[in-house]
Amino acid sequence: MSVAADMEQMAARAKEASRALAAAPGAAKDAFLAALADLLASRRQDVLAANAKDIEAARAAGMDAPRLDRLTLTPAVMDAMADACRQIIALPDPVGAIEAARPRPNGLLVGRMRVPLGVICMIYESRPNVTIDAAILCLKAGNAVILKGGSEALASNMALAGLLRQALAAAGLPQDAAQLVPTADRAAVAALCKLDQYIDVIIPRGGEGLIRAVVSQATMPVLKHFKGVCHAYVDEGANEDRAVTVVVNAKAQRPGVCNALECLLVHVRAAPGCLPRLGAALRQAGVELRACPRALTLLGSLARPAAPEDFGREFHDLILAVKIVDSMDDALDHIHRYGSNHTEVILTENHDRAMEFLRRADASMVGVNCSTRFNDGGELGLGAEIGISTSKLHSYGPMGLTELTSAKFVVLGQGQVRG
Amino acid sequence: MSVAADMEQMAARAKEASRALAAAPGAAKDAFLAALADLLASRRQDVLAANAKDIEAARAAGMDAPRLDRLTLTPAVMDAMADACRQIIALPDPVGAIEAARPRPNGLLVGRMRVPLGVICMIYESRPNVTIDAAILCLKAGNAVILKGGSEALASNMALAGLLRQALAAAGLPQDAAQLVPTADRAAVAALCKLDQYIDVIIPRGGEGLIRAVVSQATMPVLKHFKGVCHAYVDEGANEDRAVTVVVNAKAQRPGVCNALECLLVHVRAAPGCLPRLGAALRQAGVELRACPRALTLLGSLARPAAPEDFGREFHDLILAVKIVDSMDDALDHIHRYGSNHTEVILTENHDRAMEFLRRADASMVGVNCSTRFNDGGELGLGAEIGISTSKLHSYGPMGLTELTSAKFVVLGQGQVRG
Repeated sequence: MSVAADMEQMAARAKEASRALAAAPGAAKDAFLAALADLLASRRQDVLAANAKDIEAARAAGMDAPRLDRLTLTPAVMDAMADACRQIIALPDPVGAIEAARPRPNGLLVGRMRVPLGVICMIYESRPNVTIDAAILCLKAGNAVILKGGSEALASNMALAGLLRQALAAAGLPQDAAQLVPTADRAAVAALCKLDQYIDVIIPRGGEGLIRAVVSQATMPVLKHFKGVCHAYVDEGANEDRAVTVVVNAKAQRPGVCNALECLLVHVRAAPGCLPRLGAALRQAGVELRACPRALTLLGSLARPAAPEDFGREFHDLILAVKIVDSMDDALDHIHRYGSNHTEVILTENHDRAMEFLRRADASMVGVNCSTRFNDGGELGLGAEIGISTSKLHSYGPMGLTELTSAKFVVLGQGQVRG
Repeated sequence: MSVAADMEQMAARAKEASRALAAAPGAAKDAFLAALADLLASRRQDVLAANAKDIEAARAAGMDAPRLDRLTLTPAVMDAMADACRQIIALPDPVGAIEAARPRPNGLLVGRMRVPLGVICMIYESRPNVTIDAAILCLKAGNAVILKGGSEALASNMALAGLLRQALAAAGLPQDAAQLVPTADRAAVAALCKLDQYIDVIIPRGGEGLIRAVVSQATMPVLKHFKGVCHAYVDEGANEDRAVTVVVNAKAQRPGVCNALECLLVHVRAAPGCLPRLGAALRQAGVELRACPRALTLLGSLARPAAPEDFGREFHDLILAVKIVDSMDDALDHIHRYGSNHTEVILTENHDRAMEFLRRADASMVGVNCSTRFNDGGELGLGAEIGISTSKLHSYGPMGLTELTSAKFVVLGQGQVRG
């Protein structure tokens, strides 16, 4: 049979299973998660053996060290997957929740009830733990999930998907609620992208190339998690101690992630006092500074000149672009031009400017006097997250359980009709 | 210049204008709406003259009567557009609203602030009043809008778009926040569908052919308003008086709209008592009944046999499909198979089944003991609406001002960093 026909059958089975998942009580979904946590411990050796095969093949094919590292499952990663299951058990079931219901003048009570999205297709690259981490969030939110991992992780993903299906069966839920695409054939993605009668949304996780390929082919909505080019703006009169603490944390605490700082903007009147201190602290944290000409005169040997392409760049490393601006308007213009709608923060003591920055900076998280690193589902109180959306449709920012649902109108009447 | 290049310039201007709209205070947006309401009165003759040209050309081209009717602007329609402006002035500005903000253990205060979507592209057919009705909702929600109406209404739409731009200028807002595609060239739609760097969302309003064409081409999210195949399920033990009142209203009060009833499902034990009364009342309201074999034995000469294709059909007319089911499960299966995720209601006196139907029926509005006709932005308390979304991403059900926005995370700190 063709890959396209296989994908269509898989998607049709997912749609059918999604009805049972949508109606499943929270207890059944939590029983699935508990069973999965147990299987991730008891069947650990099987999964690690499958992973060893993937690693061997990847090594033989000459895969580089960082990618090999991402491909590798360790006992610690297996433990983390089981912990994730237990953490999600602790989160309330979003499905069926009615956040508010209000009476209309005619006596109808109108509310919105959370409902699953339906069938979610995850398309992702190397890391096999995404197979578990993404699936368990989708399933707890009452959705069926189709998983398409990287070809280099196929054996690992097959082993993990087997555990997902075994745990679903143990909880009395349909196994087809979690299906892994069992082929490395690239035609599978193209076929999935056209099945909008079965698949409600596609979530690609990986490089910009993967995301653009999915967006250009998909006939259903795509939830995009693009790059994070995050800025911190140090305002005139900002508290210097705070600025130093926050900026160093934002850049250096974990430089390889999407909510790490990539560009520091400093008000021209804050710069003489603040920038040498900031520069020294950042250098001490091992950060390379690439500065605009005006910043360079204040930073001296602490920095080197920035190239034009250093602005708007996601370094993913201990490197920071630095620029002096003449006003908050200039900072906002720079962010508008170079930002990626991910995370923008201001350091200020002035209330009016704090509130104006909050309103005008266009990003999935805008912060006042805090690190960019807080743009994270756990830190913002959502519990686990499936990624951070940097486009505004459906969800903007970290997507937790609630963001993997929709809401329908529910209307309770006593025989009302329209006049 | 090519149409594609024209569209790209238009979209780039819209993106630029969307920044000013996003930052505009509510007072400026309301001043625009007031100016527009005045222009729709003072410049009425210009608009009607442009419309007369469209009508003359359409008539010469042999347009049928219903489409001519939809194309025609009358003084009453002009009044209704001006009234819509005044009604939207009365609605609160959604932009900048923070519905709730909660403290985290580390003292950060985390909320979500409503922000505009950015640039909305409306693609619609015959009715020129959509030019005003859609634009004013998008603009009050802080978005820029690109309008692509039907070629047969081009002169009317140009006249109306001129008033939009004049009113924007009068309120000190950028005219490019409302732009009409000034050509009937079909290549314009294809070009717009590819401009995802400027256009945040496309909303097609029209037949299924238009919607499918946009969905298959668009690289940005599409908010779809498909057909309404709405059901009412009369449960065992339902109050018969209520059932008759609600079902007749749902079908006959305005049969040509998407929230009108298209199929009546009756529990087999409710049918003997209820169906003859329902049939008689519906016939009296002028409704043609197309019944399944079992219903036919109870309805006799009141009905004629349903063809298979009468189920799942949007009649848009005084015609109703009728079917007897053995249980609520059967009713839900029928709705799952034939429904269009628009509006489903149950008539019941039983609380458990009311709540189960509410939970399990998958539609943008699910009602208990009320008419399907309540699935409407005004009736549900949203104020004006731009349409009813029958897909779950971003918004499910009527879309009012709030649904034309997104929400970003806002985080207020005192120097917090991540450990």
